[in-house]
Amino acid sequence: MDRLHHVAIPVADVGTAADWYRARFDVETIYEDPTWALLRFGNIDLALVIPEQHPPHIAVEHPDAAQYGELKAHRDGSASVYVDDPFGNVIEIMQAGGARRPADPVA
Amino acid sequence: MDRLHHVAIPVADVGTAADWYRARFDVETIYEDPTWALLRFGNIDLALVIPEQHPPHIAVEHPDAAQYGELKAHRDGSASVYVDDPFGNVIEIMQAGGARRPADPVA
Repeated sequence: MDRLHHVAIPVADVGTAADWYRARFDVETIYEDPTWALLRFGNIDLALVIPEQHPPHIAVEHPDAAQYGELKAHRDGSASVYVDDPFGNVIEIMQAGGARRPADPVA
Repeated sequence: MDRLHHVAIPVADVGTAADWYRARFDVETIYEDPTWALLRFGNIDLALVIPEQHPPHIAVEHPDAAQYGELKAHRDGSASVYVDDPFGNVIEIMQAGGARRPADPVA
């Protein structure tokens, strides 16, 4: 089965949101700056994003992501393409097996 | 670390959405009816929900969910409470260790 790499949800203030999640859940802060944060749960990462900076989305790891569009290379060597599902949900399809350093932007 | 149990995203037509995801990703259909569907990825379940029926949300498994509000029991013996994060994202906090049959509604 394919895996979800991360889920990115919209927030207006990254620090406030990150504090809220950290106060309630046992997570590891992988990255945080004023434009986005990445919190690690046991099975998946949760990204907190400002919609003007990164679209809220879910990211799927796929063994042949390029069949869905031109892959954009990220600084960590990973590559992905964004597509919309039929109802406007944004899906990032990431090439499975590509590296992504925790500190790299999700989008 | 706590785990995310599922992510529920909004769609207008469950069957069309489920077909779209199944055509692109290697997932297992755990449940599907006209009001919602549950697709299993390798590490997490993705729920496709009609917003009028179930709110889009993320679900976290927590060892003491009751501290966040009165738990609502589900038919499978699981229990959960819904809260809003500071920016309007809906978070279902599920009591960790509770059973939830795959065919049970997510909300």
